[in-house]
Amino acid sequence: MTPRPAPPAVALVSGGMDSAVVLAEARAAGFAAHALSFDYGQRHAVELDAARRVAEAGGAAEHRVVRLDLSALGGSALTDPGIEVPRDRADAAIGAGVPATYVPARNTVFLAVALGWAEVLGARDLYCGVNAVDTSGYPDCRPEFLRAFEALAAVATAAGTERGERFRVHAPLMELDKAAIVLRAEALDVDLGLTHTCYAPERDGDTVLACGRCDACRLRLRGFSAAGRVDPIRYR
Amino acid sequence: MTPRPAPPAVALVSGGMDSAVVLAEARAAGFAAHALSFDYGQRHAVELDAARRVAEAGGAAEHRVVRLDLSALGGSALTDPGIEVPRDRADAAIGAGVPATYVPARNTVFLAVALGWAEVLGARDLYCGVNAVDTSGYPDCRPEFLRAFEALAAVATAAGTERGERFRVHAPLMELDKAAIVLRAEALDVDLGLTHTCYAPERDGDTVLACGRCDACRLRLRGFSAAGRVDPIRYR
Repeated sequence: MTPRPAPPAVALVSGGMDSAVVLAEARAAGFAAHALSFDYGQRHAVELDAARRVAEAGGAAEHRVVRLDLSALGGSALTDPGIEVPRDRADAAIGAGVPATYVPARNTVFLAVALGWAEVLGARDLYCGVNAVDTSGYPDCRPEFLRAFEALAAVATAAGTERGERFRVHAPLMELDKAAIVLRAEALDVDLGLTHTCYAPERDGDTVLACGRCDACRLRLRGFSAAGRVDPIRYR
Repeated sequence: MTPRPAPPAVALVSGGMDSAVVLAEARAAGFAAHALSFDYGQRHAVELDAARRVAEAGGAAEHRVVRLDLSALGGSALTDPGIEVPRDRADAAIGAGVPATYVPARNTVFLAVALGWAEVLGARDLYCGVNAVDTSGYPDCRPEFLRAFEALAAVATAAGTERGERFRVHAPLMELDKAAIVLRAEALDVDLGLTHTCYAPERDGDTVLACGRCDACRLRLRGFSAAGRVDPIRYR
């Protein structure tokens, strides 16, 4: 008897630790995970190298990078060189309000492209790392956003309108804090040493050094600390 | 007294005749129209030249082209060289079912990027040329799709979630057939000679020649014919 092939799913893989865990969750749920990354004019292009490592180590069925130059539109410290990446902010400020690193409508755009690829692949399941705990300031990181996207997908696609099929957006990290994500990675055998998080990295030869001071680094380091684990990546 | 500046709106401008009329409608409604086009790996890159002409002639406040390479995902005759553009199809076949020229989730992606730019600009109005009459086979060209997108925008954005502001997606051509669009262009003083429609154009020196045989050309030509007008562009 031939084993039934795993059904396809599209997983958004940024190269960050959340996306590495998401990819592992998609595979653990029995999907053939098709990893999707974006080259969106981000300052931290080392992210894409991390995404490639994460997709390969995580057993993705394939990995595609879609070029999407949102920097043409400005508006975020991550894509607009005119806006400074915040550093050394008080803990209370992290996660309060919409931060300067918010890329307008980023998750909407990323999920829309993932939906297009899902249609091509015949996939009905999208996996993303959105998380309401450590990113309370991002509107597009909440469950109501994902439900609204599913409702849109049902009317936006041939699969939805012609065959009544439903798309599902899975966000397995939605309710987990960073410490819980670190422990989940351990349970799923995900190597977080391959991942990249820093908004303002530097290179030392072939090695990428994280700054340890931007909001993203500090959330990450707090997560490892709270989990009682040591972060395997290098900081400067 | 200083006149109040026109509020901004984002208009999707492909360079086709529909988008030229949409831009004119946005301006006629009193908006400063910020024109947005996509370089999405389409075969017919002459579209982008047309988009630039249309934006300039249409008095757009500015025109930006976002690079978005959907061809990496395949699936449509417009972006995948492995799929043939249909020609000389029976009239009954045009508009029946989802055609091979459907780009997966294209309008979802385009509107998502437009939404991001609208956030940056402080715009709450998006204009697009989607039309339910001549494109009955495209799921993302129907009013229910646009309403679902507005519902998504309300929960996806800082403006929506923090200040309760609503985004509106205007589709002024939704109920118009091509003949009515030709006449609307005339009423709004839009030069349709600047626009481009063909899925399989050829160049003759500096001149672009439309094929006259693909679905897009045939819909366009039927529209002019039914309106009793002559199409000013050149066919081969």
